Formats: sequence, C-alpha cells, structure tokens
Amino acid sequence: MALGKDYATQECSMARALEIVGERWTLLVIRDALYGVRRYNDFLVHLGIPRAVLAARLHSLTEHGILEKRRYQESPPRDEYVITGRGIALWPTLRSLGLWNREQYNEVQLRSFRHADCGTELGPYGECAACGTVVPVEDVLMVPGPGLDPDPADPVSRALLKPKRLLQPLETGQV
Amino acid sequence: MALGKDYATQECSMARALEIVGERWTLLVIRDALYGVRRYNDFLVHLGIPRAVLAARLHSLTEHGILEKRRYQESPPRDEYVITGRGIALWPTLRSLGLWNREQYNEVQLRSFRHADCGTELGPYGECAACGTVVPVEDVLMVPGPGLDPDPADPVSRALLKPKRLLQPLETGQV
Repeated sequence: MALGKDYATQECSMARALEIVGERWTLLVIRDALYGVRRYNDFLVHLGIPRAVLAARLHSLTEHGILEKRRYQESPPRDEYVITGRGIALWPTLRSLGLWNREQYNEVQLRSFRHADCGTELGPYGECAACGTVVPVEDVLMVPGPGLDPDPADPVSRALLKPKRLLQPLETGQV
Repeated sequence: MALGKDYATQECSMARALEIVGERWTLLVIRDALYGVRRYNDFLVHLGIPRAVLAARLHSLTEHGILEKRRYQESPPRDEYVITGRGIALWPTLRSLGLWNREQYNEVQLRSFRHADCGTELGPYGECAACGTVVPVEDVLMVPGPGLDPDPADPVSRALLKPKRLLQPLETGQV
C-alpha cells in the first residue's frame, strides 16, 4: 500500500508534503543531494540501501521535480541526479529536523553548517548573526563536527570529511 | 524491518531524527497533538488509521518523550496524550514542510498560521513581521484557509474549523 494513498484523506499541506517526501529513505536521498551527491553509485554506497529502493526513490523524486536527471557521459550512457530549486527549498526542513535531534537528545555535533563568507555558525533559522542575513544554501559551508566517525570504506563519507559548500558536486572518484 | 535499524549506519543528526519521527504516520500524530488533539479516539477518527498502528505510534512517541500520557479519568480509567516541550520543538520542522508543499506545488492554502496577539500571518521562519518577534507556539492562531474542505463526519475536522490557538486542548465532545 503506497504511502500517498494512506494520507489522501488528510486535509493538510504537511500531509501532502509527506506524500511526496515521507517514504522511507526519501529525505536522506534529498539530504545527500544537498551535500552534492549526484551519482547513482555514490548514493548507493552512502545510503547502503537495495538498488531497487534507490532506483524507485530517484525515479519518484525526478517525477516530482525535486531531482533532475542529467546525462554526463554518452558512451556508455551515464546519468547523474542534480537537485532542483524545489529540492533545495527542503533545506530548512531537513536542517531543523537535524537541529531538533541534536538539541533534544544532547547529541554531539556531527556536522556544523556555517556561512562560507565569514565562517559563522548558522543560527536556528539558517541565519548568519554576524552578517545579519539568511544564508543562501549555496553559501553554506559544511564542516565535520566533533562527533563524526565516518565509515572508512565509504568514499562518500570520506569525501565529506573535507569542509565543502552545499550543492557543490561531491568528488569521490567513483563513476 | 524497523526503520531505525535501516538508518543506523547514517552518521547524521537528520537520520537520527528520522529514526524517531520518520515512521509512517508519526509526524501526523505530532501535527495533531500540536493542534490540540489529546484523546485516543480523536487521533483515531482524524487520522483514520488502524488501532494497532495508532497505539504503536502513541507508545513510541511517549517512550521518546515527545508525548506525555496523563490520566484524565479514573473510572473507567482514561488517559490522554499531551505534547511535551520536545514535541513542540518539532513545530518549525512541520511548518516548513507544509510551507514547502504549498509554495512548490501552488496549493491553495488550507490553514493559515497567525500571531494571536495581532492577527499577522507568520513569515517563513515563524516570525511576526508586524511585532518583529519569533512567535511562541502557544501564541500561534490557526485559522482555516480557503482550500479547506473538511470531512463533515469527522468531529476533529469540524472542531478545527474554528480559529484556535495551537496546543490549546481541542474540544470534540468525544470521550
């Protein structure tokens, strides 16, 4: 039974959003896309999910205009999945979800999100207190936090050990 | 296979949050609790989910400190589920998810969220532009929007037709 069907009677924009992004793994695919993951094998190794599940999620997110499929190589044909403006607009939701977990359960910080221009850690609304602006997603610098203990066998986790801007394509060396 | 197990390898506070609130229906139970729903039968009729699923979600949310079980009647014994500070802290996440859906898919507004003190519609960060403050959840007034078409057979939907403050207990007349 599809999730969408279950929520159909719910008159609510939150429920409608969950029809689109509420399936298992979908929000984590979007998170990875915000981090700059674009290639099928990178999503696969980082999420550790079955190929069929990943293919279904990528297809659904492309259908809903959250990812865009782009051919990056012709022979053999290879596509990558690039996050769209609609997908980027989910950043405040994902960020506030992570912040909630850290604050409520006293988790050690795994990643810190900063204003790339000045290095200031973003406030609860994604704002830079030093510059007095809400920071655009492409100007957010992601820096590993003290609690991060990445899987050394995962090239995506390894690549994310270096500070990087969100959205900037992640280079893992995988095809 | 439980969702939590699947996300266990994901070194990320968003993934950890989804272990707690990412199961089907969980975020909609929290939404209802923010709207002031407290009683089992009210959740049941409004969500339209099987009793076993609702009971499991209420149990899990209570275990995680997001809802608190309170006895409101001794004979026969009846409990209600009241949202805690930890649950209230999910409001920015849920609100931004609803806002995303409405903006990205040009949905008609179903509910409007306003500052109770002055009636101003909240901005994208839950702020009141007129008063220059971020509005505390208990001061948010929920008002039906033009797109709302509630189920007349559902006493919760009917009760939510009147403007009400978030968190304020919802009166449906159901036990």
